[in-house]
Amino acid sequence: MLKELLTWMTPGWPLAFMAVGVLALGLAAATQTADPLPSWNDTAAKKSIVEFITKVTAAGSPDFVPAAERIAVFDNDGTLWSERPVAFQAFFTLDRVKALSPQHPEWKEKEPFASLLKGDLKAAFAGGEPAVLEVLMATHAGMTTDEFSKIVQDWITTARHPKTGRLYTEMVYQPMRELLAYLRVNGFKTFIVSGGGIEFMRPWAEKVYGIPPEQVVGSSIKTKYEIRGGRPVLVRLSEMNFLDDQAGKPVGINTHIGRRPIAAFGNSDGDQQMLQWTAAGGGARFLCLIHHTDAEREWAYDNTSSIGSLDKALEEAKARAWTVVSMKDDWKRVFPFDSK
Amino acid sequence: MLKELLTWMTPGWPLAFMAVGVLALGLAAATQTADPLPSWNDTAAKKSIVEFITKVTAAGSPDFVPAAERIAVFDNDGTLWSERPVAFQAFFTLDRVKALSPQHPEWKEKEPFASLLKGDLKAAFAGGEPAVLEVLMATHAGMTTDEFSKIVQDWITTARHPKTGRLYTEMVYQPMRELLAYLRVNGFKTFIVSGGGIEFMRPWAEKVYGIPPEQVVGSSIKTKYEIRGGRPVLVRLSEMNFLDDQAGKPVGINTHIGRRPIAAFGNSDGDQQMLQWTAAGGGARFLCLIHHTDAEREWAYDNTSSIGSLDKALEEAKARAWTVVSMKDDWKRVFPFDSK
Repeated sequence: MLKELLTWMTPGWPLAFMAVGVLALGLAAATQTADPLPSWNDTAAKKSIVEFITKVTAAGSPDFVPAAERIAVFDNDGTLWSERPVAFQAFFTLDRVKALSPQHPEWKEKEPFASLLKGDLKAAFAGGEPAVLEVLMATHAGMTTDEFSKIVQDWITTARHPKTGRLYTEMVYQPMRELLAYLRVNGFKTFIVSGGGIEFMRPWAEKVYGIPPEQVVGSSIKTKYEIRGGRPVLVRLSEMNFLDDQAGKPVGINTHIGRRPIAAFGNSDGDQQMLQWTAAGGGARFLCLIHHTDAEREWAYDNTSSIGSLDKALEEAKARAWTVVSMKDDWKRVFPFDSK
Repeated sequence: MLKELLTWMTPGWPLAFMAVGVLALGLAAATQTADPLPSWNDTAAKKSIVEFITKVTAAGSPDFVPAAERIAVFDNDGTLWSERPVAFQAFFTLDRVKALSPQHPEWKEKEPFASLLKGDLKAAFAGGEPAVLEVLMATHAGMTTDEFSKIVQDWITTARHPKTGRLYTEMVYQPMRELLAYLRVNGFKTFIVSGGGIEFMRPWAEKVYGIPPEQVVGSSIKTKYEIRGGRPVLVRLSEMNFLDDQAGKPVGINTHIGRRPIAAFGNSDGDQQMLQWTAAGGGARFLCLIHHTDAEREWAYDNTSSIGSLDKALEEAKARAWTVVSMKDDWKRVFPFDSK
């Protein structure tokens, strides 16, 4: 990368500009004596992470990867924050149905809205995908991107989880936040690659995870450029644009990132293809599944679960010796608010 | 940004990690005494650029913009490199038709391929958009993303421009490369937002412009994840995914970047909406059109041109006092190979 930069710079270009980057790398290396992962137990999982990061960043290592190619991708629901009893975006959607219901008196009689307003999610979504899409479009489309961003911002800073009573952004995994920071300090770019809505995550991902909007990949609906009252806006249309899940994740990675990650973190079968795609590149790779094994501090579930089902991906992880993190055994602390 | 990072870091997190960023900014500021834009004449255009960058980066400035929000977007064809006599991707396409023609004996008789093989682009594309799409799909789809990347790489390092005899990557504008580097040294993230193919630009944009694949936004065809011979691949399908031009540019910016740029550079009516979208944000903004006024060193064209037509956008630029760069008057040097 540095070499490539040098090749196109004019001879007169001050070299000091580039020294900045070199110096930054040196300092980062010097500070790595403190434990960067204090919320992880000293188990094999933590060891495998530290070993991987060390071998791809150490100068002269046979596995060295230039900084520009250090791309790490993370699923969000169940990998960076909880997803129980339903993905948190479902709570947002339900709250939007409630908030919008006064403008839609017909929803009292009309499914799937009638069941939703009674709090019966099971009945509401008995109609499968068409019912889900109808509710999604009624709550996520029809406004401008700026308006939607504000709606998400207002919700995420006030809505609370029904079981813990916490803000949803407090229910993020502290070990994973430390891991994100540890990767970045080692020159990695960290991306979210989630089945959740890209515009649902962007308003808070930077503050909560240190991941800027341009490094958030997710599902989306179509938008349209318009001039409204002399002012350009992007209007959110009632039409799916992209579903960033399962086989869609490698597609999303290619569209947004354009190069293959060297590390991927997921927790469900929806992440299997993302891990396969990451694993298939040449050179050192780190593939990791977060296994929800802690019924006491979080939730315990895998192959029998309807949300975050982990079955085929776990089999592949065992067969190919990917790292499987047991939340119960490998994490000293789960949430930032946990006492230890 | 720094404050936000601090709020979610555990107290035990080594502060030295963050000091790196602060130090880097300090050093960058100290080195800005040398002229960062040596290929620009000392005219109003250069002055407006330097003034803008200074006012959004100087600590205490009323127009100060945090580094994370310093997003600058650049059209490619006609803004970062030439686009005459046709957009360079058209030469790539033509060369692909020639290379593939032995496998397609029927093309000798079949339009638009027959005319293309005779070098008659005008006749070939008399059929309009359907003809263009047919040729695009015949040359850009049907292979994996890795295979296509290799095809582009091979072409871009060997094919030469019919008039200048130069590699296409030599026909980039030296003043714009200096501007890209100058912006980055001041904490900006620089993005390409082009009507050209995203996968056509990515294989060389990092080397030529210092812009990594994840900061390239462009037009695309759909891809599909498959396992071929036990190996995951993304196959390029014969179906348009997204057209990143005109009103598509703000959509592409929102999809890929997720926040509004504070600076935008274009050269044609295809860039007008991107500039409008950028201009509509609050705070300091820099809007700029590159005007092709130099028939001697490059080409001179604007509103009467079929390629890179600059008409409505130029009117708006005059009305709203956007910066218009005259290549003839404002650039000391056009291409890196120019003598002065």
